Amino acid sequence: MSSSADYLRRYTERADQALHACLQLEGSCSSHLLSAMRYAVLAPGKRLRPGLCYATGELFDVSDMLDAPACAVELIHAYSLIHDDLPAMDDDDFRRGQPACHKAFGEAIAILAGDALQAFAFEMLANQRILSADRTLTMLRILAHACGSNGMAGGQALDLDYNPMHGNTADIETIHRYKTGALIKTSVELALIASDSISQATRDQLLNFAEIFGLAFQIRDDLLDHIPANSANASVSTRSEPDYTAADGPAKAMERLDNLYNQAMEILRPFGAKSEGLRAWTTALLNGLPRPE
Amino acid sequence: MSSSADYLRRYTERADQALHACLQLEGSCSSHLLSAMRYAVLAPGKRLRPGLCYATGELFDVSDMLDAPACAVELIHAYSLIHDDLPAMDDDDFRRGQPACHKAFGEAIAILAGDALQAFAFEMLANQRILSADRTLTMLRILAHACGSNGMAGGQALDLDYNPMHGNTADIETIHRYKTGALIKTSVELALIASDSISQATRDQLLNFAEIFGLAFQIRDDLLDHIPANSANASVSTRSEPDYTAADGPAKAMERLDNLYNQAMEILRPFGAKSEGLRAWTTALLNGLPRPE
Repeated sequence: MSSSADYLRRYTERADQALHACLQLEGSCSSHLLSAMRYAVLAPGKRLRPGLCYATGELFDVSDMLDAPACAVELIHAYSLIHDDLPAMDDDDFRRGQPACHKAFGEAIAILAGDALQAFAFEMLANQRILSADRTLTMLRILAHACGSNGMAGGQALDLDYNPMHGNTADIETIHRYKTGALIKTSVELALIASDSISQATRDQLLNFAEIFGLAFQIRDDLLDHIPANSANASVSTRSEPDYTAADGPAKAMERLDNLYNQAMEILRPFGAKSEGLRAWTTALLNGLPRPE
Repeated sequence: MSSSADYLRRYTERADQALHACLQLEGSCSSHLLSAMRYAVLAPGKRLRPGLCYATGELFDVSDMLDAPACAVELIHAYSLIHDDLPAMDDDDFRRGQPACHKAFGEAIAILAGDALQAFAFEMLANQRILSADRTLTMLRILAHACGSNGMAGGQALDLDYNPMHGNTADIETIHRYKTGALIKTSVELALIASDSISQATRDQLLNFAEIFGLAFQIRDDLLDHIPANSANASVSTRSEPDYTAADGPAKAMERLDNLYNQAMEILRPFGAKSEGLRAWTTALLNGLPRPE
């Protein structure tokens, strides 16, 4: 595991540098608002979404061109965390080892910081000059769709309306597919837009990989909450959220996770050495889970 | 006034039709969320921002191409109203003659409806096929900038931090310029992107017109709140908002408004008959104010 962790640290560092650089360029008429935006984005994170974008780019030697889309997905992710943590939503007081944005800056500024980060993600992607106008526009279409009512925001709405008394595994998978899966899939898909040399079949396989990754990532997240050492550290939400393990039990969820992990690794196999990055993410995040009690 | 009102009704109707059409195409995994989005956008409004976009397009015979940018600015405006009305922000219970979105759908869905409408504005604009990729990308850049920390969201943050004990007219103009001015200016600017035949000098003049319009529009809004018949109907906010008339008194504000109105009309004069639409908006919204008590 430690060599995989070392490998992934390169992506995290690259994403951190790119995020610092793009937020350095961003000005604001309100220094208060800009502080809240920086606070939320630059808090330590593993930078999974930029990492998946960079690692997918390595399959086709276009990783160098991907700082703007990689940052854009992370900015969107950061905005979604700010809004999800609000009292009216999941009401979480802590995020990434620090007080949630609304605890540090107040609810109003937190709402605006999320709003401004969403706009900034699109502005920053639209302003990049490395990729052609056509490719950039395609990326903007995909990213905007993933954020909207048939993507992340729609998934969060489904999540809020979820009733654990009447929910089943299929419902929970649907929520996960929109709420977290859409942006994870987009992280991979944006990297595919940067290259000409990808067949439709290969593209479909990698989008399938991304969907599997997104779902497995969420199942593992639900499983981790069932391990006492982790649940003690977990943020305490007042709402009963959809939980994959609650619907079918942890053993079934573990079996599903193993199955998805194997499928994901199988898709990556033909890419050989170039898929080392994606395999490292897959192994680090979808495998090696401490067994639930 | 009534012929001007008849003239403007054409813009309102065209914008309403275009908004209905684009929201008809929008799907969502959450019907609850989609209902909230439609509720907020399709409530009756004068559609000033789309109207300015269409009317600017008429100066250069490109108005027919502008449904997507006109709808995009209105979707952004609608999202900003939802978030501004939230209890943590201006805490307004009514909007456009109906309960505010969070009163009708709850705070969580209202936050998400705003988030999804912002994403949808960018997606819808990115998906339109009437304008070239280059022009569309330029429009996306301008719109995203106007929404962000150096635009509308930044202006709302300045507004929240505003202290009427220490504020002066210049501070209030700055807040207005970002909070409402940025999107009004963008409504004009997007129309200018659609035409090739505009000199830099003409462009600068029309952007100046748009800035004057945005500021005068807000001063008039503040003045209307001082007229008893209007203030009785005004939404009651618990927060003391920046008020142009409070800083310098209504008489000075009225003088400033008259001055701005004359400047705006003067800029439009050389465009002759083609500026009939912009002159109608200017006359209807910046002139003919009932005198304050």
